[in-house]
Amino acid sequence: MKNYIKADEWNIIEEGFDPHLNKISESIFSLGNGRMGQRANFEETYSGETLPGNYVAGVYYPDKTRVGWWKNGYPEYFAKVLNAANWIGIEVKIGDEILDLSAAEVSDFKRILNMHEGYLERSFTAKLKSGKTVKVKSTRFCSIADDEVGAIRYSISALNFDGQLTLTPFIDGDVKNQDSNYDEKFWEAVNDEISENEAYLTLRTKKTAFEVCTGSSVQLFKNKEEVKFTAEDIRKEKFVGQTFSVEVKANDEITLYKIAANLSSENHPKASLLANCKSVIKNAAAKGFDALLKEQVEAWATKWQESDIIIEGDVAAQQAIRFNIFQLFQTYTGKDDRLNIGPKGFTGEKYGGSTYWDTEAYCVPFYLATAPQEVSKNLLVYRHKQLGKAIENAEKLGFNRGAALYPMVTMNGEECHNEWEITFEEIHRNGAIAFAIFNYIRYTGDQSYLFDYGLEVLIGIARFWKQRVNWSSDKQQYVMLGVTGPNEYENNVNNNWYTSTLAAWCLKYAKEAADIVKNQQPEKYNSLVKALNFDEAEFADWADIVEKMYYPVDEEKGIFLQQDGYLDKEQILVKDLPASERPINQKWSWDRILRSCFIKQADVLQGLYFFEEDYDLDTLKRNFDFYEPRTVHESSLSPCVHSILAAKLNDEARAYEFYLRTARLDLDDYNNDTEDGLHITSMAGTWMSVIEGFAGMRVREDKLQFNPFLPGKWKSFSFTIGFRGTTLKVQITENGINIKNSGSIDLEIGIRDQYYKLAGNAEIEVDNATLV
Amino acid sequence: MKNYIKADEWNIIEEGFDPHLNKISESIFSLGNGRMGQRANFEETYSGETLPGNYVAGVYYPDKTRVGWWKNGYPEYFAKVLNAANWIGIEVKIGDEILDLSAAEVSDFKRILNMHEGYLERSFTAKLKSGKTVKVKSTRFCSIADDEVGAIRYSISALNFDGQLTLTPFIDGDVKNQDSNYDEKFWEAVNDEISENEAYLTLRTKKTAFEVCTGSSVQLFKNKEEVKFTAEDIRKEKFVGQTFSVEVKANDEITLYKIAANLSSENHPKASLLANCKSVIKNAAAKGFDALLKEQVEAWATKWQESDIIIEGDVAAQQAIRFNIFQLFQTYTGKDDRLNIGPKGFTGEKYGGSTYWDTEAYCVPFYLATAPQEVSKNLLVYRHKQLGKAIENAEKLGFNRGAALYPMVTMNGEECHNEWEITFEEIHRNGAIAFAIFNYIRYTGDQSYLFDYGLEVLIGIARFWKQRVNWSSDKQQYVMLGVTGPNEYENNVNNNWYTSTLAAWCLKYAKEAADIVKNQQPEKYNSLVKALNFDEAEFADWADIVEKMYYPVDEEKGIFLQQDGYLDKEQILVKDLPASERPINQKWSWDRILRSCFIKQADVLQGLYFFEEDYDLDTLKRNFDFYEPRTVHESSLSPCVHSILAAKLNDEARAYEFYLRTARLDLDDYNNDTEDGLHITSMAGTWMSVIEGFAGMRVREDKLQFNPFLPGKWKSFSFTIGFRGTTLKVQITENGINIKNSGSIDLEIGIRDQYYKLAGNAEIEVDNATLV
Repeated sequence: MKNYIKADEWNIIEEGFDPHLNKISESIFSLGNGRMGQRANFEETYSGETLPGNYVAGVYYPDKTRVGWWKNGYPEYFAKVLNAANWIGIEVKIGDEILDLSAAEVSDFKRILNMHEGYLERSFTAKLKSGKTVKVKSTRFCSIADDEVGAIRYSISALNFDGQLTLTPFIDGDVKNQDSNYDEKFWEAVNDEISENEAYLTLRTKKTAFEVCTGSSVQLFKNKEEVKFTAEDIRKEKFVGQTFSVEVKANDEITLYKIAANLSSENHPKASLLANCKSVIKNAAAKGFDALLKEQVEAWATKWQESDIIIEGDVAAQQAIRFNIFQLFQTYTGKDDRLNIGPKGFTGEKYGGSTYWDTEAYCVPFYLATAPQEVSKNLLVYRHKQLGKAIENAEKLGFNRGAALYPMVTMNGEECHNEWEITFEEIHRNGAIAFAIFNYIRYTGDQSYLFDYGLEVLIGIARFWKQRVNWSSDKQQYVMLGVTGPNEYENNVNNNWYTSTLAAWCLKYAKEAADIVKNQQPEKYNSLVKALNFDEAEFADWADIVEKMYYPVDEEKGIFLQQDGYLDKEQILVKDLPASERPINQKWSWDRILRSCFIKQADVLQGLYFFEEDYDLDTLKRNFDFYEPRTVHESSLSPCVHSILAAKLNDEARAYEFYLRTARLDLDDYNNDTEDGLHITSMAGTWMSVIEGFAGMRVREDKLQFNPFLPGKWKSFSFTIGFRGTTLKVQITENGINIKNSGSIDLEIGIRDQYYKLAGNAEIEVDNATLV
Repeated sequence: MKNYIKADEWNIIEEGFDPHLNKISESIFSLGNGRMGQRANFEETYSGETLPGNYVAGVYYPDKTRVGWWKNGYPEYFAKVLNAANWIGIEVKIGDEILDLSAAEVSDFKRILNMHEGYLERSFTAKLKSGKTVKVKSTRFCSIADDEVGAIRYSISALNFDGQLTLTPFIDGDVKNQDSNYDEKFWEAVNDEISENEAYLTLRTKKTAFEVCTGSSVQLFKNKEEVKFTAEDIRKEKFVGQTFSVEVKANDEITLYKIAANLSSENHPKASLLANCKSVIKNAAAKGFDALLKEQVEAWATKWQESDIIIEGDVAAQQAIRFNIFQLFQTYTGKDDRLNIGPKGFTGEKYGGSTYWDTEAYCVPFYLATAPQEVSKNLLVYRHKQLGKAIENAEKLGFNRGAALYPMVTMNGEECHNEWEITFEEIHRNGAIAFAIFNYIRYTGDQSYLFDYGLEVLIGIARFWKQRVNWSSDKQQYVMLGVTGPNEYENNVNNNWYTSTLAAWCLKYAKEAADIVKNQQPEKYNSLVKALNFDEAEFADWADIVEKMYYPVDEEKGIFLQQDGYLDKEQILVKDLPASERPINQKWSWDRILRSCFIKQADVLQGLYFFEEDYDLDTLKRNFDFYEPRTVHESSLSPCVHSILAAKLNDEARAYEFYLRTARLDLDDYNNDTEDGLHITSMAGTWMSVIEGFAGMRVREDKLQFNPFLPGKWKSFSFTIGFRGTTLKVQITENGINIKNSGSIDLEIGIRDQYYKLAGNAEIEVDNATLV
């Protein structure tokens, strides 16, 4: 755990340069706009420790799988987010010396991520070996207003010398992925072009043949006045640059503007990629840096209007929650239903792929409340588009008749993951995808989603579960063998309660969904039945499974059992583990972890969270009290579910405690792994802790409900959410709750157990005395 | 399955050259002498498909582990049998043409492995592109009389031309392992020397720094008369050769003798490796090829006297059983307690390592009966020498206080295997090692083994089991969680009956062994107790576990359950599986295999085989009848156990059927994998099928017992076994059994349920009428 980020409500601030923290900061200060993104690498040369990272959404490379021991069914390839051309590069030479913070004496170093306005700023003074000293200030952003465009303003002042400054802005595509399995580079050159102050480089991915054209246009100013220059062209392998020199006197300030663009063949015909890139560059350069930045600030203002959370009385918490919201929107803006939310977003390579069940379980609730309905819908449509691949995936594993098993990790719908106990067995992901459909409709009321997309997916998933269970003649019930639940600290178990519960729910919900479509859109229903070769007798099979599913329970303790045989394990509590043995995933051998009763992340409790209405509070409490003390929370996705359940059980102190575990996970480098990238998807979990936990927000029977409390340390917190055509601003103080309806639609809102009318453009205030 | 090997009682014969079969034949015709060995590669150049293989026992390379997803506890390295310098090479040039069977027209090709005399012979006629035709005959062996020496006689006759023949005998150390994880070569050069007709090459392994000096001496004859030649020295990277030419006329025969030696730093000081190699070469060359071959024939005659099985009435079976015995003795001669029996012996690289539980479970019984007692004792001492590493291995997994977990795969005692479900969980190997001690003493009566070696190992193993079980407060019994049994088609199961049974037996036997040592050698006992920091209170813990161990059973069916929950699986029988879906390990995805009830190899039945005396025949039969129909026998180690049990259950037809599944496994390339190397350890299983199955041989209460039957197709079978200082020849015919005692020791022999006196140098004959 580190504590070097300065507290500030709207900015992430690093002061002073510590090379050992650089890779962590490169992650934290990352930029993105949903279409492209990058780590906070330096523009100028840096020979110290760095993880260079530039990424273009949807452009991936299927790296050949690496395994120790091949198992039938493993995918041949692991599709990875690609490290793409670096467009931020500006080599700076002072006389003959290259500016490199690793070789210079650095002072006044400051890095600021301005979340309110969406840019990264860095300033420092560097004294070179020669004694020449420069002051640098750079400002950079990936435009969320025009998501193919990025811009840099790079100012350098000569503090104590007269002489020559040589600048080489460049685009370097000769990059590689650190996680390349066979040390292979994934890009090959298509073309390059340098003319006047512009440079272009088009690269093609091997195998997948995606093309990306990266272009840049530079402008030079000296003491605010434009300087015309003639550049020397630099061409190397997959590299274009332009070198030019300018004479400076002490206190002169040179400013280089670099406007860049990344255009991908996912969005442009390959034949016109270069031409379109030129046109994008031309337009952006014509606007100029300041105008582009203004657009950026305005676009972020809109985002914040829809999604901000304000915490009074706790600057660290305020900074953290905004950081989480900011990074989520930098990663996914919801414009493109072919894109999804990688666990590291655009901040690192780790975990490859782009899509995990994290999206459905954690991110969808966030986007439902903080972005236009289309955004979360696109996340769902993404899976609908990949249904065919999910059916193929299931076929590879021996399923048939349209059964669909969505992959554990994917880019294009094909499975990437190759670890049998997860790839083949962590099948609860299929349930989370069905649940997200239910959740989307519950939140938005948009049942039409079922007609065109939802039902087809639900039938594929239901067919999978139907085939995945088997009848135990021993138990005279249906069982689900060979499963890994969300708790990955047990593998290949039988009858994981969460998975079985989710499976039965899917079967029930698929039938309900089918009834809705049949009643409301009989023609669509009939054509779907025909297309899917669906036989209504399948409903009876599903119902039989729902009726006769086996669930492991312990009657005496009144709890659901995580899996068969869980109580055979030696029952130790996490609090009794010596600190020296934690985290167990670093300190214990894998078999010891598997044999232990310790749970990585919410499993039974994840199910109770999804289906809380089906259980009384006592049942929730018994299970929470049993499982929480056995949970090591070694997944960043675990604490939020515990926080929400603790809040529901009125255990406010613990709800807050669980929230704290992830709120500043990356800002404080809690797990010593922020240098690999940020934990993007768990940021949505932190948001859930606040909204579903502290504010107790739910949607039930088409109405919003709140069951709020105020964490003791806070003076108040308030948040904005969108709901069915209107926007609400909710504030929770120590006195009670205030809700403003800024739309024209009338609502009925539940607060604790009571419903209140909330007319359009009106507000209600309910104080705690009333609430008790 | 192939059927190209000609039936013959003493020879393995291939007629005609089929390049597609070459890699298979390279495996089948392999040579070895326990110290070194090689695949049946051609001496001359071959540009067709080949897997070059030369191996030196005990010389290994720790290749960096390759995994997809690292798990705590995985070993960093996988120690591999090394492909070593090729000493058989002889490049042959006729005029300007290189002799290469891949480029020539080949006729009269014949390859013979003479098992009786221990050599490989190959002859062929090759017509080159030019039309020049040569006839070649080569004879080659690895001397079992002097196991550092090998020899080749290579004769070539010009059939239709006069001209120049150029020969280049060489030693090529620039070889690599096909299974190299990172495509790395494992050897580096130390020195080389070429002088007159001798050449030497010393290589050192990277990391492990083993050194091997390979030397050769050549002699040339033309039409039986020695030809003096002056060779041109050829030196390349890790390569020494000598080129010389000889003029031939049509029908001239040129014969090259190449006497070679491999000396390893395991047996010689590095400083004198080259000098010692020269001296070995000098002595061997002085003897000459014919004398060396004579020694070889004599040495093999002795082996066969001790171990032969004669089958009358079935040439294919006769050939097969001798092939199995021959290959076992080529692999392991028992002279060196640092060596063991790799699953592929000296016939291929696959599986790496040298030692699996195969040694204890299958090979020890073979060597006990067919070789001097020292041989099987050395196999046991091997594990004793590695006890320290087994304790370290257990410590890495979190065990302590001297608990020992032997590795799944090893060279030097360190674990090599890296697949968590096997590496960490297939712990029954520890039990097989304890059982081998029991089995050795039961067979030999040599209780002294416990004093110096056995007890120490048994205590380490017992301590492991003590820590590996845990008390289930739910069951109020000890349970064993997270286990993989011999049936690797289930992983991470709870309470595998075989493993739990074996564990409890180990705890009981360790106590019995401790009592024996305490009574018979109290001083040794006391010093061991002190050295091991052993507290006799540990006995009470062990006894408590033995008393309260949980075993899964199904009372109704009267069977032991392979593991908890086995009866939840869909119960399908192998006979109902379509042929198109078998073998399931090629046709099904891994998760489907895991969920199925299908068993890879004997598991419960393996336990019933080990401990048959503890169960009545009805119990054996119920379990056999339940499990055998669910067993796919996709391990070559499976059928033998089933054969032996079927024989015990008087199901002679099936005993023979199971025997047939492995008897010609490699000769007929039953599983399409012989090209990778032979299934050396399962060959011992085939031997067991005949001796423990058909002959029903057991040792009980210090006496040999037989419970024989004659497979219907056979006229008779007879075999030789050593037992406690004497040698018995046992013949089973349709009339009964005849046993000759060729030693001077009197025995009491059980035949069926009756005991007979068998005096030294006497024989008994019991006919079937008497037996019934």
